Amino acid sequence: MIPIVSIVGKSDSGKTTLIEKLVPELCRRGYRVATVKHDVHGFEVDREGKDSWRHKKAGAHTVVISSPVKVAVIRDVDHDADLTEVRDRYIRDVDLILTEGFKRNNQPKIEVSRREKHQDLLCSREDNLLAIASDQPFEIGVPCLDINDAPGLVALIEEKILKDRKQAKVFLRVNGVEIRLSPFVQESITGTVRGMVSALKGCQSPQDVEIHILVD
Amino acid sequence: MIPIVSIVGKSDSGKTTLIEKLVPELCRRGYRVATVKHDVHGFEVDREGKDSWRHKKAGAHTVVISSPVKVAVIRDVDHDADLTEVRDRYIRDVDLILTEGFKRNNQPKIEVSRREKHQDLLCSREDNLLAIASDQPFEIGVPCLDINDAPGLVALIEEKILKDRKQAKVFLRVNGVEIRLSPFVQESITGTVRGMVSALKGCQSPQDVEIHILVD
Repeated sequence: MIPIVSIVGKSDSGKTTLIEKLVPELCRRGYRVATVKHDVHGFEVDREGKDSWRHKKAGAHTVVISSPVKVAVIRDVDHDADLTEVRDRYIRDVDLILTEGFKRNNQPKIEVSRREKHQDLLCSREDNLLAIASDQPFEIGVPCLDINDAPGLVALIEEKILKDRKQAKVFLRVNGVEIRLSPFVQESITGTVRGMVSALKGCQSPQDVEIHILVD
Repeated sequence: MIPIVSIVGKSDSGKTTLIEKLVPELCRRGYRVATVKHDVHGFEVDREGKDSWRHKKAGAHTVVISSPVKVAVIRDVDHDADLTEVRDRYIRDVDLILTEGFKRNNQPKIEVSRREKHQDLLCSREDNLLAIASDQPFEIGVPCLDINDAPGLVALIEEKILKDRKQAKVFLRVNGVEIRLSPFVQESITGTVRGMVSALKGCQSPQDVEIHILVD
């Protein structure tokens, strides 16, 4: 499963700015990163008046914009997905997921805090807090790094999160032939299949999944 | 597999406008529709300066915006996907896919033509042309309907495309228990699994797929 680190903090504490520093540092070290942002206000599909915007407006459930370098998929959902559902259904082929916000999930977190805005923290040590990134010292038994120290924070993420990922085992046979899979691909398949299956009634914690598909 | 109908036509013939008429008519009849648009110019993730835009700009491979009613996923790709790949990788839970353009794929097509813009057609009968939607008559052995006749065009799509869909067989066992699946869910799983598997080397036409996943 792709590990998740949530960047949390009070309003205007600098969450997006920290993510803008962490992502390039992670990329520089060879990791692929996905980010997740929760949106309560609703967002627009493309720009008003553009073709894909008109498709969605006309009532399309899903709109895909495909290009040689990027693909965008916008789809209707019937509930607010939690983070593991977002991961399992929509994200693959990355090493790490950074989320902006999502304070109430139980994934490891980094809290951002700026003295100019707030003097106390949003999280306590019990909130699975990996580190604090701040311009003032906090002593709550969690590493407190400088708010601009992206290399230090990424080193922590590497050490605590990326080093001991659990690896699922995947066996795949296509048209009768067994296919050898790299750990990366095994992980990608595991994420996709678990995401798909966990959406079904009575399959919320799929540890052992067997699928057989026959197409005429 | 989810059927595809491509809305094609010369430039400025009214492809988006026709899609804006077909989608509500299909919805009215109880179908869920996805649309696909090819973009050669590149598109923007959200609006400049917004958080998710900044995440992508910082180098994130994938950006997800999650809300209670919509989810957007924007991800990097390393090639221009063809239509069946777009379908198998990114689209599920819909009954029909309408594409804007994609003239060169071999899926069934409806050509839009407006006298004001063009006097001849882009496609010939050999291009798997289901119908012509125009404000002038064309006699090439393919039904030619009025450019505004969305109910007539949708009736054709229903009769020729939606009525005889091939159904794959899916067997699923989760944590040792066999899970009964509706035809709709079977189709959704088939699409996802085939999309995932067909991205692997040597698995381009997966007719028979067995997967077994074990998570600690």
